[in-house]
Amino acid sequence: MAGLFITFEGGEGAGKTSVLQEVTTKLKQHGYKVVTTREPGGIAIAEQIRNIILDPTHTEMDARTEALLYAAARRQHLVEKVIPALSEGNIVLCDRFIDSSLAYQGYARGIGMDEVWKINQFAIDNRMPDLTLFFDIKPEDGLKRIGQNENREQNRLDLENVTFHQSVYQAYQILLDRFADRMIVMDANPTLNIVVNNTLHVILEKIKEKQASHNR
Amino acid sequence: MAGLFITFEGGEGAGKTSVLQEVTTKLKQHGYKVVTTREPGGIAIAEQIRNIILDPTHTEMDARTEALLYAAARRQHLVEKVIPALSEGNIVLCDRFIDSSLAYQGYARGIGMDEVWKINQFAIDNRMPDLTLFFDIKPEDGLKRIGQNENREQNRLDLENVTFHQSVYQAYQILLDRFADRMIVMDANPTLNIVVNNTLHVILEKIKEKQASHNR
Repeated sequence: MAGLFITFEGGEGAGKTSVLQEVTTKLKQHGYKVVTTREPGGIAIAEQIRNIILDPTHTEMDARTEALLYAAARRQHLVEKVIPALSEGNIVLCDRFIDSSLAYQGYARGIGMDEVWKINQFAIDNRMPDLTLFFDIKPEDGLKRIGQNENREQNRLDLENVTFHQSVYQAYQILLDRFADRMIVMDANPTLNIVVNNTLHVILEKIKEKQASHNR
Repeated sequence: MAGLFITFEGGEGAGKTSVLQEVTTKLKQHGYKVVTTREPGGIAIAEQIRNIILDPTHTEMDARTEALLYAAARRQHLVEKVIPALSEGNIVLCDRFIDSSLAYQGYARGIGMDEVWKINQFAIDNRMPDLTLFFDIKPEDGLKRIGQNENREQNRLDLENVTFHQSVYQAYQILLDRFADRMIVMDANPTLNIVVNNTLHVILEKIKEKQASHNR
């Protein structure tokens, strides 16, 4: 099999990172080769780009500069890590990808989804995910979860107000509509175990489907 | 007057940087407010982005990553330096801008001009130059000039082979055709003095034209 590229998306507190870890373990138990990653993914150039984005002294950073830097880091991570792993036949599970930029920067930050889409198409050069799982939880509930989790380090985005996170949620609804052939909604409200099992089921179905189309 | 944005373009050894300095002096003698700049233009974020691009250890840098980083640095330099200077009514003379990316990365490096155009449009958000001067010299002659100038530090691009520079020259011919309303060819073969006077003449004409349309 030529590899399968699956991205995990959702707002803050949807639990996608925990689900991703659990699902990875289970897929490996099923005998699959799995690579788990998230940008910048330990790629030196991408890490350095990310340092510029996150530097707290960069208060003068323009939103479009930031979007271009994210796209640059995405490109390098894709070329150095994702594509080689796919070529070796791995299932690659990536925590956030292009849809996060469309939702957070394109929509919630107001640059425009179509605009952010263009530079990300340049970055990924047609290497879209085979499948994208959207972990669906109401922003208020997601933020409540984050508040209850004392081990979780709060990041810059957690501190945005609820309106911002609602705007991100709206953006994902638009994306689900636009990319219905690639995106699947996962109910993120049940317990971790249930969400993990549902997610595993969807991924195993996708693997079967890909194998079937390959054998045809 | 609401400022005038003029960019200087050309291959290596066309002499545009020397011309730009001389013309700046003369425009100031004519009483104009002039700001001379080149990317990254001392903008902290843009300088840091450029450091990533030029780091000699980054041998794994992908061409598209590089193009996105150039676009990000361009955005920040534009927002922090060029646009404020224009708002204050300055004539801004910029050594290289979007056309350099189209010629060097889009055409000569083979990413494609239309592709590089898209991310640069995102970066500059319709703030195209009012006027672009292309300093025209055959690549062979430009490279000969560089070889003769002992004071000039050779950069990475000077070391590319002649074929690369011929490809850049071809790219500028395409751009001159496509952007005939914005681009003017300046013969870069005569002595510096002659080229400076011709350039000054063209810029003063543009200023008059802009003032006339402003008064209309």
